[in-house]
Amino acid sequence: MRLKLLGSGNAAGMPLYGCACEVCIEASANRRLQRTPCSAQLEIDGRTYLLDAGQMNLTQQFPAGSLDGILLTHFHVDHVQGLFHLRWGVGEEIPVYCPEDGEGCADLYKHPGILRFHAQQAYVPFVLEGGQVTPLSLNHSKPTLGYLIAWQNAQIAYLTDTKGLPPKTAELLGRQKLDLMVIDCSLMPGCDHPGHNNLDDALVLHKAIRPRRSVLTHIGHDLDIWLKANPQALPDNLSVGHDEQLVYPIV
Amino acid sequence: MRLKLLGSGNAAGMPLYGCACEVCIEASANRRLQRTPCSAQLEIDGRTYLLDAGQMNLTQQFPAGSLDGILLTHFHVDHVQGLFHLRWGVGEEIPVYCPEDGEGCADLYKHPGILRFHAQQAYVPFVLEGGQVTPLSLNHSKPTLGYLIAWQNAQIAYLTDTKGLPPKTAELLGRQKLDLMVIDCSLMPGCDHPGHNNLDDALVLHKAIRPRRSVLTHIGHDLDIWLKANPQALPDNLSVGHDEQLVYPIV
Repeated sequence: MRLKLLGSGNAAGMPLYGCACEVCIEASANRRLQRTPCSAQLEIDGRTYLLDAGQMNLTQQFPAGSLDGILLTHFHVDHVQGLFHLRWGVGEEIPVYCPEDGEGCADLYKHPGILRFHAQQAYVPFVLEGGQVTPLSLNHSKPTLGYLIAWQNAQIAYLTDTKGLPPKTAELLGRQKLDLMVIDCSLMPGCDHPGHNNLDDALVLHKAIRPRRSVLTHIGHDLDIWLKANPQALPDNLSVGHDEQLVYPIV
Repeated sequence: MRLKLLGSGNAAGMPLYGCACEVCIEASANRRLQRTPCSAQLEIDGRTYLLDAGQMNLTQQFPAGSLDGILLTHFHVDHVQGLFHLRWGVGEEIPVYCPEDGEGCADLYKHPGILRFHAQQAYVPFVLEGGQVTPLSLNHSKPTLGYLIAWQNAQIAYLTDTKGLPPKTAELLGRQKLDLMVIDCSLMPGCDHPGHNNLDDALVLHKAIRPRRSVLTHIGHDLDIWLKANPQALPDNLSVGHDEQLVYPIV
């Protein structure tokens, strides 16, 4: 099993369009500092899945036939916008595991094209290529699922978008021996949002769940600025994710 | 005044994701044959406007400050999807002229960011950089406006998405001396769709409106195949548009 972050940014991304701050100027010139829509590529038993589909050029990144399925956390546009074009393709259907959301996003339900949406119930595991995936309720402004993915002896949790965690999700994760927790951390400390963690929230969850390693994702512009000014703020086994980073296995 | 097509394709584009036909294989290897979402760049009196915003990489194509406004034909996702990211920028507001559509697309109205939507009434002209723009009702499944753009002695009409034209629009256009008509032609002859022209429809409009030149846009995969097999099908002053083509002034 391998997990690579494709994008590590919030909807605005890094650089922020029109921003001339030092961090944005640096990012404009350095792809490694850029943050595209939060999403990841999961390889499990030789098959390729996406965790969210907000990358705008999915059809270029994943030629037809290279994508075995998609796990959507939720239907906000920055997590699904890559599907608007891809769906119109031809050939094999692509299964999309997702939360139950009557609305979806724009006309994805009306015109699913080659996508087949399979709504999942929180805490009801399903089998994926010999691994087990458990959807987990998260705290967000739309129905949202995190995913606990177990394969052989490894366990990783992908938890975005969320503010804190619902008690049942926190309890379930606290009982696991997580190798990796990828967790929403959109905001700098002290900056509150009803649907996203700030760094304080993420640190609390890291201590409560005790994964071997945590990686922050869905990073917002102001957090990047804060982190540049506070480079020693994070514990050793917690790091800020970046685009195209292989986060599992831990290297 | 200059008008350049940015994209000349329908929502599926060319190559069609997953298609192995000869035309798609050729297009995969040749950017000039590819068709991205139907849209155009209008330069008028040294200022830059977009006609539709479905290009997925607008923030890269148009650095902050380079875009003076956007004219939307309608709120289908392939015509607005580039705004989902761009809106989150900072700095000057970007005016978006659009049809009155209570729904919009996804959460664009709820979270407009730096965009300011200005709903326009059909047949009520407005001034744009010393030119005059007249919104025109079109026949589509969502409220849709074409635009007649007059600047000095030049007149161009941009008409997509539409099936035929409403009588009042056809009549108004028939009274003009159009230098250019850019017209929806998504489908091959004989293939009917309630919201898009096929080639027969486009030829009828070309003859009725009598512009100096017509350029077809919003081209679908099957029409490209048909055109390859029927290269002599078009009259001299009507051509198939392609991405990045300067269509006005006529060269």
